[in-house]
Amino acid sequence: MLKFVLFCSSGITLLANIRIVLVETSHPGNIGGAARAMKNMGISNLYLVAPKIFPHADATARASGADDLLASAKLCANLDEAIADCQIVIGASARSRTISWPEKTPRECAEKLVPEAARGNQLAFVFGRENSGLTNQELDLCRYLLKIPCNPDFSSLNLVCAVQMVCYEVFVAVSSQQQEDSQEVRIGDEGEDPLATMKQMELFYQHLQETLTKIGFIDPDKSKTMLRRLRRLYNRTELDTKELDILRGILSLTQKYKNS
Amino acid sequence: MLKFVLFCSSGITLLANIRIVLVETSHPGNIGGAARAMKNMGISNLYLVAPKIFPHADATARASGADDLLASAKLCANLDEAIADCQIVIGASARSRTISWPEKTPRECAEKLVPEAARGNQLAFVFGRENSGLTNQELDLCRYLLKIPCNPDFSSLNLVCAVQMVCYEVFVAVSSQQQEDSQEVRIGDEGEDPLATMKQMELFYQHLQETLTKIGFIDPDKSKTMLRRLRRLYNRTELDTKELDILRGILSLTQKYKNS
Repeated sequence: MLKFVLFCSSGITLLANIRIVLVETSHPGNIGGAARAMKNMGISNLYLVAPKIFPHADATARASGADDLLASAKLCANLDEAIADCQIVIGASARSRTISWPEKTPRECAEKLVPEAARGNQLAFVFGRENSGLTNQELDLCRYLLKIPCNPDFSSLNLVCAVQMVCYEVFVAVSSQQQEDSQEVRIGDEGEDPLATMKQMELFYQHLQETLTKIGFIDPDKSKTMLRRLRRLYNRTELDTKELDILRGILSLTQKYKNS
Repeated sequence: MLKFVLFCSSGITLLANIRIVLVETSHPGNIGGAARAMKNMGISNLYLVAPKIFPHADATARASGADDLLASAKLCANLDEAIADCQIVIGASARSRTISWPEKTPRECAEKLVPEAARGNQLAFVFGRENSGLTNQELDLCRYLLKIPCNPDFSSLNLVCAVQMVCYEVFVAVSSQQQEDSQEVRIGDEGEDPLATMKQMELFYQHLQETLTKIGFIDPDKSKTMLRRLRRLYNRTELDTKELDILRGILSLTQKYKNS
């Protein structure tokens, strides 16, 4: 697997241009849970707009080691302050609204907006209050409304889970962008055996056919369909050379078994 | 936006073929949180393997209205019981292992395996203990290891968040599959044999172990790694019942070979 690189080709930390803003969060445990979810996905900029209770032991406990994000969290009096230097702001809110905002799913946000962050733009994902979401005045500050796909009959998401899904989509998009960006030489997966070549597979199939004939499982002249099925089965398995050795070892011992 | 439909064209509930299995969960709050995350994404089959404390007020509180999933959760004594009727089992575990399982990301699982659920196969996503994940014996029962992309320097995910990301990916894949389905009448894959269940696979592995012992290929007390390698190989092959019959036919004849 390709090593995850936090820096994009331009040398700028891409994920450093993305922030999570939590507005008037009631439960400090949710702030901690959000910090953990962010750090799991390599995002470290946390902005807290007028949290009800913070700092708090519940926040630290739920952060489970993401204390650094809590310590460096920026406390703001209102949303304007938290997003003043941002170019793109996406608001997450389940609140019903009188007029509709342009909506984007987390995947659309990640795929279309992460490249903006790579160009140096500041992106903010804004999450509203646990019970009442964002006000229309706050949504006025957002370019897009985040729409997380979910069961329409049970659509109230846990705040931490919502943060987790967004950060996950961002991480996946950033990783895949960096794989494209990096023209680095790929180093093979150490310790993994190489896949068997077609030639090695052919030798295995000959060995298999010979063995199956000896034990009386097939008559080679009449069992074309059976052999084809077995080929299909092992072809799709993508055997590595070590596994091929194991299977051929079994075939060899099967043939010897009669005389043992 | 397309209305989300829980039923696929055949009238079978696709999401009903997908289950979440939680193994020996310590905190009842996490069981409730997982139930909520599932219901948010339209998944309702919850299996609990030997939960430490359940039912419990914390579970109900964190379920936030997904009480029905808690009430209908199936309690099992061990993992075998929870997945006996499943064709495809995916294990989520951050535990280090001596040999590697084939890995799939949640997106790969959703995109490649959800169509299997649409064909009537039972899919299980298995989540291990909060602190220690799944044992190697439990992973032996899994066809794939779930690899959630994340920050390699801070990769311990909250259990509920992990369940949420998987259910989200499944929901997105199911929604998009149903958009495709609604464009065309699907014709079932004629002549395809159903995939083998985990129970059938277990019987095959017993038969394989017995045969390999008889021909002297393994010493069952000392060959755990070899047997695990063979499990890994055949688990990823996704054998159908006809292929399983063929392989077991070969094993039977191999055992008889000596006396013929």
